[in-house]
Amino acid sequence: MNNFEFSLPTQVLFGKGQEENLPERLKPYGTKILMTYGGGSIKKNGLYDKLKNLLKDFEIFELGGIDPNPRVESVNEGARICRENGIDMILAVGGGSTIDCSKAIAAAAYYEGNAWDLVIGKGKITNALPLAVVLTIAATGSETDAAAVISNEKTNEKLLLGHPLLLPKVSVLNPENTFTVPAYQTAAGSSDMMSHVIEAYFDNIEAFVPDAISEGLLRAAIKYTPIAIKEPDNYEARAQLMWTSSLALNNLTETGKSFMWSCHYIEHELSAFYDITHGAGLAMITPKWMRYILSDKTVDKFCDYAANVWGFSRELDKFELANKGIDATEEFFKNIGMPMTLGEFGIDDSKFDVMAENAVKNGYLNMAYVPLTPSDVKEILKMCL
Amino acid sequence: MNNFEFSLPTQVLFGKGQEENLPERLKPYGTKILMTYGGGSIKKNGLYDKLKNLLKDFEIFELGGIDPNPRVESVNEGARICRENGIDMILAVGGGSTIDCSKAIAAAAYYEGNAWDLVIGKGKITNALPLAVVLTIAATGSETDAAAVISNEKTNEKLLLGHPLLLPKVSVLNPENTFTVPAYQTAAGSSDMMSHVIEAYFDNIEAFVPDAISEGLLRAAIKYTPIAIKEPDNYEARAQLMWTSSLALNNLTETGKSFMWSCHYIEHELSAFYDITHGAGLAMITPKWMRYILSDKTVDKFCDYAANVWGFSRELDKFELANKGIDATEEFFKNIGMPMTLGEFGIDDSKFDVMAENAVKNGYLNMAYVPLTPSDVKEILKMCL
Repeated sequence: MNNFEFSLPTQVLFGKGQEENLPERLKPYGTKILMTYGGGSIKKNGLYDKLKNLLKDFEIFELGGIDPNPRVESVNEGARICRENGIDMILAVGGGSTIDCSKAIAAAAYYEGNAWDLVIGKGKITNALPLAVVLTIAATGSETDAAAVISNEKTNEKLLLGHPLLLPKVSVLNPENTFTVPAYQTAAGSSDMMSHVIEAYFDNIEAFVPDAISEGLLRAAIKYTPIAIKEPDNYEARAQLMWTSSLALNNLTETGKSFMWSCHYIEHELSAFYDITHGAGLAMITPKWMRYILSDKTVDKFCDYAANVWGFSRELDKFELANKGIDATEEFFKNIGMPMTLGEFGIDDSKFDVMAENAVKNGYLNMAYVPLTPSDVKEILKMCL
Repeated sequence: MNNFEFSLPTQVLFGKGQEENLPERLKPYGTKILMTYGGGSIKKNGLYDKLKNLLKDFEIFELGGIDPNPRVESVNEGARICRENGIDMILAVGGGSTIDCSKAIAAAAYYEGNAWDLVIGKGKITNALPLAVVLTIAATGSETDAAAVISNEKTNEKLLLGHPLLLPKVSVLNPENTFTVPAYQTAAGSSDMMSHVIEAYFDNIEAFVPDAISEGLLRAAIKYTPIAIKEPDNYEARAQLMWTSSLALNNLTETGKSFMWSCHYIEHELSAFYDITHGAGLAMITPKWMRYILSDKTVDKFCDYAANVWGFSRELDKFELANKGIDATEEFFKNIGMPMTLGEFGIDDSKFDVMAENAVKNGYLNMAYVPLTPSDVKEILKMCL
């Protein structure tokens, strides 16, 4: 087990009606709120009106229309609104894209130049507006972490921005707010949270406690995703998925481990070039990556995975057991409606070379559980054809 | 799943050498530290000298000799030192008793009367000195929670004091600092953390995510306690037990559950009257309580416990499976050296009536997983004879 630091200062308010506590929780931060949201589903399902009414004693400014894979243009626009109106805090109402965009806005509000400077390290984060969240989809875990992924269409880049100041102060996790999430997005959200857990789990450091927690979170997603797809207003299913998504990426599953993304860096290239749904891309890549890295060196970890997550018998031959775990993973993603080939996304192999080069550019894939070169990435992409 | 709030603002610094980060982390709070500790083992194993040297730029005051089951007299003494010397912060170096006592001192420093007033609710906690911890035994989880248990020998009471202000700001969890913990205390510590998990797990609310985490934490304690007893300086074993103890009682295993102590209220009476080791008392009581409450209504939960924690086959008859889990629990505690009868503690039945009455006095056992009356408590105590 490696040394680590852990804390989770975000106030998680979990359950029915928790929005009602927002006025009291937000009051200490001031009176002017920038409310951010995505494509407007919150206007259809009533959440927008509910929040406007609850927060009627605050002055609300708005930035809607934040895209999946949020663009740096939205960040700059949000930062401008904050500066021009003396905004005191940001309230992100949405999923990972809206929250990530809002984190970047919170920092960019204190930065005069192009927000992209902060993403590429040309500018430094010195301060950030306080951020609150009302989560509307169980997926990225952005509601309890201090990171954001921002896209730049001009450069085909999708990069990570992280700083302790970006951690939400308050996150409202009301499972009822996810009842209207469509089946495909529910499945993509579960694929995303499972990928977060899987990437922490497959690691050169074995640590019993975080790994046991990871196995539990994976079993939760496996059990409740099909239920939530079949019965969108099943509270218990939505609740377990929501809590799983938050615990999947707030460092708990990484405590004492080295932690380095593999599939995420590959998927970020797909999203950057083709703007596909992040979780769906991960669902496609993960089983291929598993098959590609399975070897004498990794087989024992795959056996733990197959036995402790999927319940296969340890009496099987090692590689048979490992492959059963991988097959079950692929079968699961397929059954919840995730695409299993690039063709289903309308993507061919024409950009494999540049994507493979870009994926390793930051140097992190070289430090992954099984280090990956551009040719490895290309092989994994080929397996997705 | 019930509504809940969750946050863990304590900065956990986990691993080798993490003490070295203390000067930097404590600096914001001031210059005058009250260092608290127990019977002096930290002077024998070098930790005392190490910390005094690391903190040489601070002015250190001391309160040593804090007892297991810390007494209100120690709290009053610590509060007096704080007030008379303008102490800025408290550094608790020890286990649950030292930490609990220090939490009470932190609050009592701002209270002019007898600290016992704060425990029984006659006085109110209005402020508390910041508290830092260097943990020396994996057991109570007090290093990441906001509660303290304080004893009053005059009234034979052992009561809980809780307030958000009592949460440690920083907790150093260096597993090496537990290498010198003797076998019996190691076992009692593991029994304590397991009891915390078990009491959260057996609950009228079933919630997949916290229950899966609980099962993982129990498996960790079951795996690593015998190793730590056999090889006291096995870093991995000490590390997994230390992290388990902290995660066992920081609300994570209780998220969405109703949570109410059962065995703890019974054990508190034993400790209050006979000053026995808390964890050892819990190890004795827990299997008896399990047998006593096993019924048609609870058997399914006991089957989950037996299968998911102990690995018994679900193909067994329900009650056979449930009893196997209980037998395994008792066998485990016995094998790690915990007393299984009151006789081993030198306790007879002479005070059963008053202990049984006291245990239910606060009304909480009436709201437990299986509600317990004085006669139920007496029956469970009889099973311990």
